[in-house]
This record gives sequence, structure tokens and C-alpha cells, in this order.
Amino acid sequence: MGERKAFHAYAGIRPAVPPSPGVLDRFAAIVGDRHAIRDPADKAPYEREWRDHYVGKAALVLKPASTAEVVAIVKLAGETGTALVPQGGNTGLTGAQTPHETGHEIVVSMTRMDRIRDIDPVSNTLVAEAGCVLQRVQEAADEVDRLFPMFIGSQGSCTIGGNLSTNAGGINVLAYGNMRDLVLGLEVVLPDGRVWNGLRRLKKDNTGYDLRHLFMGAEGTLGIVTAAVLKLYPRPLEQVTVFAALPSPDAALALMAALQTRAAGTLTSFELLPRIALDISLAFDSTARDPVATVAPWYALFEVAAMHEGAARTSVEAVLADAFDDGTVIDATIADSQAQRNTFWRMRETVSDAQKPLGGSIKHDVSVPVALVPRFLDEAIPVCRAMIPDCRPVAFGHMGDGNIHFNISQPAQGLSRDDFMARYGEINDAVHAIVMRLGGSISAEHGIGRLKRHLLPEVKDPVELDLMRKLKALLDPDGLFNPGKVL
Amino acid sequence: MGERKAFHAYAGIRPAVPPSPGVLDRFAAIVGDRHAIRDPADKAPYEREWRDHYVGKAALVLKPASTAEVVAIVKLAGETGTALVPQGGNTGLTGAQTPHETGHEIVVSMTRMDRIRDIDPVSNTLVAEAGCVLQRVQEAADEVDRLFPMFIGSQGSCTIGGNLSTNAGGINVLAYGNMRDLVLGLEVVLPDGRVWNGLRRLKKDNTGYDLRHLFMGAEGTLGIVTAAVLKLYPRPLEQVTVFAALPSPDAALALMAALQTRAAGTLTSFELLPRIALDISLAFDSTARDPVATVAPWYALFEVAAMHEGAARTSVEAVLADAFDDGTVIDATIADSQAQRNTFWRMRETVSDAQKPLGGSIKHDVSVPVALVPRFLDEAIPVCRAMIPDCRPVAFGHMGDGNIHFNISQPAQGLSRDDFMARYGEINDAVHAIVMRLGGSISAEHGIGRLKRHLLPEVKDPVELDLMRKLKALLDPDGLFNPGKVL
Repeated sequence: MGERKAFHAYAGIRPAVPPSPGVLDRFAAIVGDRHAIRDPADKAPYEREWRDHYVGKAALVLKPASTAEVVAIVKLAGETGTALVPQGGNTGLTGAQTPHETGHEIVVSMTRMDRIRDIDPVSNTLVAEAGCVLQRVQEAADEVDRLFPMFIGSQGSCTIGGNLSTNAGGINVLAYGNMRDLVLGLEVVLPDGRVWNGLRRLKKDNTGYDLRHLFMGAEGTLGIVTAAVLKLYPRPLEQVTVFAALPSPDAALALMAALQTRAAGTLTSFELLPRIALDISLAFDSTARDPVATVAPWYALFEVAAMHEGAARTSVEAVLADAFDDGTVIDATIADSQAQRNTFWRMRETVSDAQKPLGGSIKHDVSVPVALVPRFLDEAIPVCRAMIPDCRPVAFGHMGDGNIHFNISQPAQGLSRDDFMARYGEINDAVHAIVMRLGGSISAEHGIGRLKRHLLPEVKDPVELDLMRKLKALLDPDGLFNPGKVL
Repeated sequence: MGERKAFHAYAGIRPAVPPSPGVLDRFAAIVGDRHAIRDPADKAPYEREWRDHYVGKAALVLKPASTAEVVAIVKLAGETGTALVPQGGNTGLTGAQTPHETGHEIVVSMTRMDRIRDIDPVSNTLVAEAGCVLQRVQEAADEVDRLFPMFIGSQGSCTIGGNLSTNAGGINVLAYGNMRDLVLGLEVVLPDGRVWNGLRRLKKDNTGYDLRHLFMGAEGTLGIVTAAVLKLYPRPLEQVTVFAALPSPDAALALMAALQTRAAGTLTSFELLPRIALDISLAFDSTARDPVATVAPWYALFEVAAMHEGAARTSVEAVLADAFDDGTVIDATIADSQAQRNTFWRMRETVSDAQKPLGGSIKHDVSVPVALVPRFLDEAIPVCRAMIPDCRPVAFGHMGDGNIHFNISQPAQGLSRDDFMARYGEINDAVHAIVMRLGGSISAEHGIGRLKRHLLPEVKDPVELDLMRKLKALLDPDGLFNPGKVL
């Protein structure tokens, strides 16, 4: 998979020389030899982006067990000019967690710092270390009858630290916000080796500048997050999951607004899918079935959650009845069991994998103001088709957040994969230009990492970019924290 | 009202000399003479904190009408070394909006920048200029069948810019968060005169560091917020408002947890009141009546909102029935009309004013983790009583956010107001020590301003304070933005 890399040539980054064997020994001594990985085969899983889009090389992989060990690592890095690449579950999609090819950097894998330090269902807080796997946090919340509402595909292996550092999104953002919205406090080891203990469990604290949000979404370039206070929520008692066939993205918007104002509950997800997404998922997974009897150009998969049994379903049915009448909805199926709910969601989750048999895919993770999603699709799809006739746009995603995974699969015939993928940057540029004109973002939920680093100067207001660079220089003047990522 | 100031002596701040008449003329020319206030009588309302806790003196009051005029003011301030004090509705409680007594500072009143630039009920966004009065934003949202969920006592005169700069709280934080949680984008004039146009209307944007949260809650010390993209929400169709008599703060916690997990809707407010708060409110307002028939040591005023008529009330009644059975609730009244709902809330809102006839009041705006509110009260009330026998603690507030307005009224007899208020700092220190031990905050929702500036070095982690100072130096190296506030 070299197609992405082709557009993002490796840029020289600090440090220019590898750490000496003596320095590596000193690093290893901090965590103990068992947790300092030097063997190339053992290191490999930490050096590769999981889809092999980036295959780097680390001088060493360290697995600290405590904040104190992270501090010692950071201090030694500062003393010896060694660059550090913080890593969680290594599930990121932009290469932020992958070391460069130089072999000069040390990967700091946080996976051994996986304790849940505290859980308090009265205050609705949970204190987790950075290496905690997201699913374990979900389960711990569940055990005390609370909800931790971050749900993403990689939840079985991604970590809280990675979720924080990339400001993870997922399918519940509509109701609960992004990862940064789910955090009350943070503990961060700063690039100078000091610990900022901001592990406050407070819903209100107006004693000066908010430092939390500097580190969240910074992809490890401003320090290493070691723990966080997360917010818990009451668990809904009823979930109504619907797969609806729609005439257009405009109809999806209208349906969404009706649900938000009239459903007896909270609209927690609203996913948009084009017919092609269903077709390829059905082809990919022989056990899958069409969730709705009627074939339509677009579909919505949505969920309404309520703190009460019964009312939500009745009200969703009423919204759907009106939507049938006015032509907003062509057909719809309400999940009648948890099993059916799961098949609905599997259909949505299969889309990315189901694209693979179609050949090359030129991907975009973009957002626009919610009301402009139809306009974005109206403009971007024809532009792509004009550039590559018969290309197959698979535009799906979190419509409720204005976030579309705008993926273009290669034509069924007439163009080789290589020739198609050679136009990656050209298509990216055209799509991103539309996104920017609509006031959107070229990275809605996956971050910048290495993948989109070169795009920032094109899409960011120069004032904003300058402020970002000044913040980086302020906190990490030696540029040793995840160099060459984001900025 | 000199009692607070006695503990917060004026600290020498920049600039050391007043702007010359020629410089003042240049500032006035930017906004036009009509909007450059020089007459002492006309300036006076902008120079005084509204309760006269701080009475400052401004060289000039400028009322810009546009971001461009703010830029021109800021550039001239940089060129001439003139300090600026941004001001919104002048309703703040910590003196952040008040110029110092030197007469060297220029107040920049944002009240003419009061346009609602855009409202989009599909994207659920509203773009407001900083000088917009909060209530106008609420009304504009209401007109398109949406909710802007920030509700605070001063909403008829406070401005969005002030709400942002102080990260306002209020009675709906439990469900919707603080002001910083209600913002998608910002426009800020930086101290160097550049404009950061971060007016994005996006729910998801992961393209680098989050700068918004630097400026929110910074009380005008890092730049001047000129506009914001605010989040709108669906309007609940049912609100159930209850006044309940309780045996203890522990019972209040138990009731709150039961409501959060069992009410068919969202618990949007949960306010705690001691009996004395009702007694003084009844004495203060002759039209007020006891909301609950039974006299109890504590009361809760709470509200459950739902997107559906009927279900919420039934479920709240069920929670209350169980609470009666297990002794968590002694008595309760559910508001049967909007008028009754208003009288419930008036009782809560009267508490501050109703304290005045009792004489001096030593105030604290503190927060602790929600589960620790009972322990805080158990510890802090006896400590105050031990220090000043017969003092009258009026501890009330937003229990759902762990935020207590812990006000101590002077004894009914035996101690003069002056002798009581002379112990302000001593009581503050004792209460804040308990707050800090419980992992709380000494300013939950009102901010730091001048009032608590001297306390920051005592309560803040030195690493955090150092980071705050470095951020201030980075953005405002000449210290011209609201000097002597926060830091």
C-alpha cells in the first residue's frame, strides 16, 4: 500500500542521529529489560501502521508502567536529544502513532498503563490510565449502571490515550460529543519532564486557562497524556434503531430534524449510506441481507435513545409515518431485536472493508456544516465523476455531525488500480477545495498525523497555523515529541 | 462595600503612565467621537463593578461596531503601550471587567457588536457577535424552535462575549455543560492585532490544536473575542419542576442519582437549598410562599426535561414515590403550571438578595466532585461555626455540578458587620482549604478576575500556573490585555 505515501514524501525530522547503544541501555533501565523491546521481530508490530500504510523503524520500544517511568523517559529524552513517539493501541488512521523510517525514534507504548484508578457512579466520573483499552472503560461503566458513550470500530484495541490524543469521534458524537467533550481532567507528562496533574473530577472549575484542550487532539506532539478523568452518563433504557430508505440526502436532513425535535428521546446516531454501500456490503458478506425491502438511492441508519421504555418507539413510528406521507422516507425497518440491531450496524461497519474488492479507493474524512452535507455531495460527486468517468463514489458516514467518509472506488473496468491511485492527490485537492469553500474540515475525526501534515498550510488560516507552531515551540522547543506529525 | 477589596490590595500594573490626550484622540477616531466616551458621568457605568465592589477609572471607553474597529484599537494599543479592558454587559462578579483605579486603561465595551450574523436550525448553529445580550440569543433560538440552553440570572444584560470569557455556568450545566461546551467556533482579535477566524460551524474538526478553549474562560487576558458559533438544541416539550423537602444532602445525592437513571427525560437542573435559604427568601419577598408544606433541613429544586409530553412526569412521580418510601424525600410539590414553576425558581433566585438584610456575608463559589458535596458541607459548616459562633451558613447552589455558593451570613447579634467582615480572609482560607483537600475548585463558575487573583498561587499546581503564565507571555508579551486580572 504505497499509494498514500507517494503523495507524502518523508520529510527529514529531528533527531538527525540515532541514540547510541549506551543511551538505549539507559532508557531500557527505566522500564526494565523485559519492557524495553529491542528485538526486530518483537518491535515490528509497534513500527507499522496497522494497514502498513506506514512502516517505520524504532530504535527501541519502551513500555512504561507508571507516570514516574514516563517522566524518567521524557527527562532522559530531553537530556540526550532523543525523539519519542507515544503510542496507544496502534489503531490510528493517519500514521501519528508510527515512528519514521529513520530508526532514530523511540516508541513509548502506553499499553501497560492500563489501570482504572477510580470509578464513581454518583459523581459520574471514571479515572483511567492512558493505556486502558476503550472497551474496558465501557465495560467498567456498564458494571456500575452507567454509560461511557464513545463507540468506534476499534474499541476492542484502541486506548483512552489514543482516543484523547486524536479526539476520537464515532457513532455517538451527535448526542455526546467528541472525545474531548467526555473529559473532565487530564494528567500529562510535559516535554520538559514535569507532570501537569490536572486530574480534576469537577464539572465546574473557572480558575484560569483551560489547558486540557491543548493536549487533546494534539496527537502526542505537546506531551504524553498518562491518565484522564472521563465523564459517565446514565444508561438509556430504550434504544430504537431504524434503517430507512430515502430519496436524497436532503430528505435525510429533513428526517433528522424531525427526529431531533419530535422523537421522545435523544437522537444519538444518524448515519447516511448510498445504495452502493449496501450493494458492496451485501456482496462482501454473504450472511448480510438488505435491511429494507425497497431499493433506494440513499439510506439512513439512526438510533434514538430514551430513559424510558416504550415512548421512543411510538414517537419514532409517528415521525416515520409523517415522513412516508410527505415522501421524505420511502421505506423503513425498525429493529425488533438486539440481533437485528446488530445486523443493521454490521451493514454500516462493513462498508470500509467491502470497498476493498472494488480495487483502489481514494479516501477523504471530511466535515461540513450539517445543513450543507447535501450540497457537498451534489458538488463533490460530479466533480469526481468528471475527473474520472465511471469512478464509484461511496460517500457514507456520520451525517448528524456533518462528517462524510467520502471514498471514491476505482471504475469497474478501463483503468488500472495504479493509474487510478496515481490520481489520489488530484482528487483530494478537488474534494478538499469544495470542503474548504463550504467552511468544512479536511480531517473531521481521524486527525492529521503524517497523512495530512502537508495539507495544513493549504487549508489552515495562517494565523491559526502560526499560533499552533508557537504553542509547539513553547511546549516542545526541542521538537522531540512526535516530530513530523501534525506540524 | 469595601470588605472584599480590603483583602485584595491594588497591585501595580502596566502601563505606568496614562495615554496622552493625543493618543486618546487617535483611539476615539477609530470608533468615532460618538462612541468614544470621555465624559466622567457617561464613563462611570463602565468603570464600576455593578455592586461597587470595584470602582475603577478609565482613560476612555470605546465602543467599536466591528471586528475591524477592534483590530484598529488593538493595533494602536500595541503601538502606544495602552492597556485594554474588554467589557460585555458588566455583570461579572470578580471585577474582571472593571478597569483599575489608575485611570490609565481603556475600556473596550463590546455592546455595539450585537448582531446575530446567522442562525441555522438544521445545522443547529447560531453565529453571534460578542456584544449580543444572552437573552436575545435565547429568543432568536426560540423563534426557530430551538434551545440555547445557557440560563443565568443576568441573562437580560450579560453578553455572549462575557459568557465566553468567563465560561459562564448557570442552572442547566448538568445537562448541557458550561458555556465552553456550547461553542463550535470563535473569532478572536489577538493581542498582536491579527484576527483568528475560527468561526467554524463544524461538529467535528480534527485539524490540529484546539485554540478555542484557550480564549474561553481567559477573561479577556489573551485577546478579545468578537464573535462565536453557538450550538443550538432541540426544545424539550415537557418540563417537570419539583421542589422537594429532604432530610440531608446525602438524601439529595441519592434522589439525584435516582432521577438521572430512572426519569423518562434529562435531569437539567438539581439545586440544593438549606431551610434558612427559604426562611430568608420568604422574609425578603412578602409574595413568596413555602413551596412545600413540610419544614425540612434541606430542599432540592430540580427539573426534568423530555422531548415528549407525559412520560417524564409519570416517571418523576414514580421516583418520588420510592423516595418517600425509603425516606430520601420528606415531602415534594410538582409545579402544576408555568406560574408555579416560576415561583419555585424565584425562590431559588431570591436567595442572594435575601441574604442582604442579614448583614455581612462571607462568600465562596466553590465546587467539589459531586459525590463529595455532603462531605464538604459536613466539614465546612462546623469549621465556620467554630470560628464564628452563631454565624449563619447559607449554603446553596448547583448540587448537580458539585457547585455550592457557600455564603456565611453574620450572626443575628453580638458581632458588628465590620468585625464579622474583618474575618473574610480567615474564613475564606479555612473553607478553601477544605475545598482543596477534597479536590475542588475555589472558583466554580464566577472566574478569577481581581477578586481571587491573589489566591491562584495558593491553590494552583505550580506547573499549571507556570503554563498559564507562559501562555499569557506568548500571546500578550506586553501585558496590555486586561492586566492584573487572573494572573
